[in-house]
Amino acid sequence: MNVIVDLCLIPMNAETSLSPYIAACQRILKEAGLSIRLHAYGTNIEGEWDAVMAAIKACHVKVHAMGAPRISTTIKLGTRVDKAQSMDDKVTHVETLLSDDTVV
Amino acid sequence: MNVIVDLCLIPMNAETSLSPYIAACQRILKEAGLSIRLHAYGTNIEGEWDAVMAAIKACHVKVHAMGAPRISTTIKLGTRVDKAQSMDDKVTHVETLLSDDTVV
Amino acid sequence: MNVIVDLCLIPMNAETSLSPYIAACQRILKEAGLSIRLHAYGTNIEGEWDAVMAAIKACHVKVHAMGAPRISTTIKLGTRVDKAQSMDDKVTHVETLLSDDTVV
Amino acid sequence: MNVIVDLCLIPMNAETSLSPYIAACQRILKEAGLSIRLHAYGTNIEGEWDAVMAAIKACHVKVHAMGAPRISTTIKLGTRVDKAQSMDDKVTHVETLLSDDTVV
Repeated sequence: MNVIVDLCLIPMNAETSLSPYIAACQRILKEAGLSIRLHAYGTNIEGEWDAVMAAIKACHVKVHAMGAPRISTTIKLGTRVDKAQSMDDKVTHVETLLSDDTVV
Repeated sequence: MNVIVDLCLIPMNAETSLSPYIAACQRILKEAGLSIRLHAYGTNIEGEWDAVMAAIKACHVKVHAMGAPRISTTIKLGTRVDKAQSMDDKVTHVETLLSDDTVV
Repeated sequence: MNVIVDLCLIPMNAETSLSPYIAACQRILKEAGLSIRLHAYGTNIEGEWDAVMAAIKACHVKVHAMGAPRISTTIKLGTRVDKAQSMDDKVTHVETLLSDDTVV
Repeated sequence: MNVIVDLCLIPMNAETSLSPYIAACQRILKEAGLSIRLHAYGTNIEGEWDAVMAAIKACHVKVHAMGAPRISTTIKLGTRVDKAQSMDDKVTHVETLLSDDTVV
């Protein structure tokens, strides 16, 4: 089962800057061979359910090991069985509709 | 690694009533032996990471099998390594603080 | 427009215990006259859209004033125009289905 | 109070394709003069709290008017009082850290 995920992991009680933790997670996701795309409030991930979930668990383990005693993560998980759809497809469909807008 | 989760699974393109889907997921979570508590916008779950995640995957599989072509799920995942904390602890701590409020 | 909300506000860089912050938010929500119910990973809120949103903003202002430099909040927002539905209705519908389960 | 938001609005009981609804919301957000960026599982928005929230409410009103009887939206809301931070800053900080990685 393929899944498109949006991951937002928050190490609590950490230094104000979260960048080092997020960078560590990006490395884990990339090394897992997943398609990822960082945005301003999380990371889009595309892959097989078990591979994605194993990588998210590895992120929690790593961020705790980096010193964060407590983590709160928000995940959105999309699955569909009617057709295959990539992260690119989702964005492109919307952008195509918007490109048809009459310029005023 | 123990985790406290909040699960909100939304079968899209379904009948307006989601109750049958949610009830099916409740059965899966209970049969997995997890501690769960239904609320008005999701279900709190407490258990070992892999057991919780396997049950959430089983929910997706089941809801697709019930006829939903597309599912969008939102999950919050809390882990901590400084101390053990149950779902009950979390609620009780806040309620204790509120019970000290002066009644007006 | 009526809305059922699930609110989970996380003060980052705070002491490990979030209870005082959550208790402060509970007081704000109650004083706003909203129906609320605390659970292990957030608070269910029911009310008129603008009243609920004003209270959530007041929570952010208060938690910053209590010393948290940075807050990350997750909100789920449900609206429907086909019929009125309360938080109680949502839970009761599912529990009714489950109560019909054959006891094994 | 400035806020960085991640918005994911799901019209339930809709046609399988959500693109027309999402495109309609993009137009509302743009016309509100907000900085926005579409990704594969939502839209990042940056702006003043009240302006952002008014636009999100307008999205719900519009999507109901387009025929969706029921909507479930997930929002992440980040505020901070220690310093100004844009959506670009958040992404750039992480990418800078990653660019230092030794290429293997």
